[in-house]
Amino acid sequence: MKKTVAIIFFSLFTGSLSAQKTYPLYEYTELTDTKPHHSDTIWRKQVKSPRLAWGSTDIRYPQQNIPAETFGTKTRLKGWKGERVNAQAVLWSAEELQESTLSLSPLVCGKDTLPTDAVSLHFVRYVMTDELNKDGKGGCGHRPDKTEWDSSLVADPLDIVKARDVRACSVQPVWVNVWIPSTAKAGKYKGTLTVAGKNFAPLQLALEIEVLNRTLPAPRTWRFHLDLWQNPYAVARYYQVPLWSDEHFEAMRPIMQKLADAGQKVVTATIMHRPWDGQTQDPFYSMVNKTKRIDGSWSYDYTVFDKWVGFMTEEIGIDRQINCYTMIPWSLQFDYYDEATQTVQFVSAKPGEQAYEQYWSGFLSDFARHLKEKGWFEKTTISMDERDADAMQEALKVIQKADAGFKVSLAGNYHEELEPDLYDYCLAFGHNFPRPVKERRMQAGKKSTVYTCCTEAMPNVFTFSPPAEANWLGWHVAAGGYDGYLRWAYNSWTEDPLRDSRFRSWAAGDCYLVYPGMRSSIRMERLIEGIQDCEKIWILQQTLTGRKQQEKLQQTVEMFTPEGLTREEITPMVNRAREILNSL
Amino acid sequence: MKKTVAIIFFSLFTGSLSAQKTYPLYEYTELTDTKPHHSDTIWRKQVKSPRLAWGSTDIRYPQQNIPAETFGTKTRLKGWKGERVNAQAVLWSAEELQESTLSLSPLVCGKDTLPTDAVSLHFVRYVMTDELNKDGKGGCGHRPDKTEWDSSLVADPLDIVKARDVRACSVQPVWVNVWIPSTAKAGKYKGTLTVAGKNFAPLQLALEIEVLNRTLPAPRTWRFHLDLWQNPYAVARYYQVPLWSDEHFEAMRPIMQKLADAGQKVVTATIMHRPWDGQTQDPFYSMVNKTKRIDGSWSYDYTVFDKWVGFMTEEIGIDRQINCYTMIPWSLQFDYYDEATQTVQFVSAKPGEQAYEQYWSGFLSDFARHLKEKGWFEKTTISMDERDADAMQEALKVIQKADAGFKVSLAGNYHEELEPDLYDYCLAFGHNFPRPVKERRMQAGKKSTVYTCCTEAMPNVFTFSPPAEANWLGWHVAAGGYDGYLRWAYNSWTEDPLRDSRFRSWAAGDCYLVYPGMRSSIRMERLIEGIQDCEKIWILQQTLTGRKQQEKLQQTVEMFTPEGLTREEITPMVNRAREILNSL
Repeated sequence: MKKTVAIIFFSLFTGSLSAQKTYPLYEYTELTDTKPHHSDTIWRKQVKSPRLAWGSTDIRYPQQNIPAETFGTKTRLKGWKGERVNAQAVLWSAEELQESTLSLSPLVCGKDTLPTDAVSLHFVRYVMTDELNKDGKGGCGHRPDKTEWDSSLVADPLDIVKARDVRACSVQPVWVNVWIPSTAKAGKYKGTLTVAGKNFAPLQLALEIEVLNRTLPAPRTWRFHLDLWQNPYAVARYYQVPLWSDEHFEAMRPIMQKLADAGQKVVTATIMHRPWDGQTQDPFYSMVNKTKRIDGSWSYDYTVFDKWVGFMTEEIGIDRQINCYTMIPWSLQFDYYDEATQTVQFVSAKPGEQAYEQYWSGFLSDFARHLKEKGWFEKTTISMDERDADAMQEALKVIQKADAGFKVSLAGNYHEELEPDLYDYCLAFGHNFPRPVKERRMQAGKKSTVYTCCTEAMPNVFTFSPPAEANWLGWHVAAGGYDGYLRWAYNSWTEDPLRDSRFRSWAAGDCYLVYPGMRSSIRMERLIEGIQDCEKIWILQQTLTGRKQQEKLQQTVEMFTPEGLTREEITPMVNRAREILNSL
Repeated sequence: MKKTVAIIFFSLFTGSLSAQKTYPLYEYTELTDTKPHHSDTIWRKQVKSPRLAWGSTDIRYPQQNIPAETFGTKTRLKGWKGERVNAQAVLWSAEELQESTLSLSPLVCGKDTLPTDAVSLHFVRYVMTDELNKDGKGGCGHRPDKTEWDSSLVADPLDIVKARDVRACSVQPVWVNVWIPSTAKAGKYKGTLTVAGKNFAPLQLALEIEVLNRTLPAPRTWRFHLDLWQNPYAVARYYQVPLWSDEHFEAMRPIMQKLADAGQKVVTATIMHRPWDGQTQDPFYSMVNKTKRIDGSWSYDYTVFDKWVGFMTEEIGIDRQINCYTMIPWSLQFDYYDEATQTVQFVSAKPGEQAYEQYWSGFLSDFARHLKEKGWFEKTTISMDERDADAMQEALKVIQKADAGFKVSLAGNYHEELEPDLYDYCLAFGHNFPRPVKERRMQAGKKSTVYTCCTEAMPNVFTFSPPAEANWLGWHVAAGGYDGYLRWAYNSWTEDPLRDSRFRSWAAGDCYLVYPGMRSSIRMERLIEGIQDCEKIWILQQTLTGRKQQEKLQQTVEMFTPEGLTREEITPMVNRAREILNSL
């Protein structure tokens, strides 16, 4: 008809899924650091260039300053069989180093050699970061204007490229990771790290790894309850592949495998639209379908949920627990597909209201039936974030009414009245379970863990956090008598995570620990060290016979409590504790 | 987690479906007319009050003015067997008339009587209207600010209440409609219209209906191709019943029955979201579901479409044609349910683009299969509004590729190149089919009709349009050699249609012809008269033997062309023509 009408363009929910920009998967150029740094004149004054020396895994070496602190040409690492150990070397040069490559000679001890696939070598890359809140207290809050924050490039991503041109007058750290086979013989293994290239003579460093006569079992069997939340939506967007397509799962495979190797126990699943109100660059959608038919009946479809959970449990091996978010989102809007209008509609209801129960009870009963069919019911929890206690009580009622067997998980503060109903209870950093409660929970096989997020200035895993803080967290789990650690974001990538870890909210790096590619990070490797340390502590607590040794271990562990913690102490504290641990 | 986050409240698509306000279904109070009118003093000066006299169905009697023109105490109507005839009486009083009721004595002719259920009596009610555009040219365009328009109360809705208190110093028109049974004997039937009440002596008027010895068949069999677009969504919202629930269909039943009795041939169906971009108070949603599965396949569901079309064809009897809107909406956004995100997504694509064909071809093939299963394929058309010819050509290609048997309908201007492919082609008022084309189309059984909308200043059916203009339209169909008439809105009600026919777009009344209740209107009854007149013309063209009479008929009909049309001529032209028609 000839009607004058405003053409209203609207496209719903496409959000970041419709992103047209593409981002690097292999080679890329870093952003430019605007910080003052050594001038080319200073760089050229150096007697010897290029140079290679051992550095410290505690240091994020500035990209354009001549390294202040290096540690010669020999380094010695200690580790258990089955443990991953890390070292960092530093390469720097006044001239460009073309097509630099890394290699490590076989690590040999007498007639024994560590297999070459035990070793991984990485060029450390630089990512844009910012800083803590101006008051120095944590990194929460919105950061819409990046210019308000002091930004700089920091060393964090561990690159996967095999050859790099190192820019003139710059530093190129090199990360060495050795996963000692559990079948290795104890002893001192020696090898040589070589950096070679097109326009310079090979540079070499000596590496020794002392394999101790103790064994750390495979991550899958670790007692440590690790729960880093996965974001499959970020992967689909970044890799520009259809969500839940085969390509999508192939893209996720190495990323989730890395997580499994860190000891992850929990699959992150969603049972409603935008459980966290789209706070991440790539919002979480629902993995289940709830359809309201025109006859008033409801039907539910689990195609996506089954495919995702099946992939994680059966193919990746993260199969201990499935956490389903959430019944108490920030925005109390609950989605369903409305057959009458062929649209998505939202029920707006608070826990305790009839509309809330109507929406959830029907779904939860059917969900329980489905989970039992799949054999997943026992490992599934209905998950909540910290909300006011009344709301959580009301939600619990609805869950238990739907199926008394449902497990429930909560990440939040300590609520005495809720505790008995929570299978997986994760406390905010600084909160503790009363010892008898913790005992009871342990005997009941319940999980009692701790989390950090943007709230903590330190210890934390922001891209600007000192690397040792990531390691510290594992020790804290042991010190606090927790079963493990939770972080809200394993890979909720920013728009361009390889180049810029800053986000519209929270201090830089809060949203992810690993990079596309799949690339690990200094933070992730140091966090794994901490998790390994905790596992080792627990093993020694079971196996150490000498009372003196037990006391020494206990004293060492007890240092790792938040009380009177200062940033300066953390790194030396971690190093000293790790030495002691390896001496027991 | 303890994140600071903006709580973004959002509720999608709920639109008017979530309307909390409720609106009257039975008794209600009209808005107040701010127009100057006769003072109470003038009203009280009247020698006789209350008074009742015959009026004219051409006049919308002002509510607060003593009627300027009435026509005594006797009136005579003429009609064919099976025809509906209308008369209007005017009641006015300086004092309030309490509990006024209407009755008509049996209409008697010798020993024959017309059955009482042939008669319906209505208090005419008053609704707020506005005016044509300031330039006097039509009523298109947006009208966000009601104060910019000269608004007034006009007589239009035909109420269903049986007793009314008539306000002091006001006019209460009374509408008389008699549906002459096709079994009635020819002759002059006489009866008495009585208005009685609690506080006044009964008032009476004489009514005579001359039943002519010709028969108008039942509306269902009329040749007149009537296509007034239905809006089921408006009914659900106004009646506050769940869309497509049994209560919804019960609410629609009398409204759609009225439409069937007007000779409606077409069911209005939608096959995508907001085909007209939500231009009406209650937007149209899709009646079919298109789901994109995560394996890339598509599935389609027709539950809503089948229920709506089944209701209209089988229960209401509007079963000649099903028009499905649309492949070329204003906003080229095409909805589907995305299993990956459990959300509604939109394909943004133009006809001719691959994404456009991909979206439509799969659906149309499956739709054809489904329609054949239901036995509806032959009566279904894929419908388009006027769009640029290239886009329409591209859409046609996709349709024919999906199933060469698909019928297509278009309401728009005349496009020679498209005409052969259009089964149902409705031209904008003022456009004509070349005579040979019309001949060919008629022989092929194709429908060739005409439409009016906001464009025409007159003749039109705005709430302020002179009633005879609605009647004129039927004559125009005969004069233009069309098969029928289309209007874009039968019941796309405004927010409060009983009290206020103004809308955010277009001149008042453009959006609907009938009122909730189900209440007819002066416009609707006069439109039905026009349709009946056209049907009578076609019958006489077939049956009149006398050449002179045929010529007389033809001359009379030919007056009804847009050329040189003036508003003043319309009413007398219609009256004269109807006299002649009843004299043949």
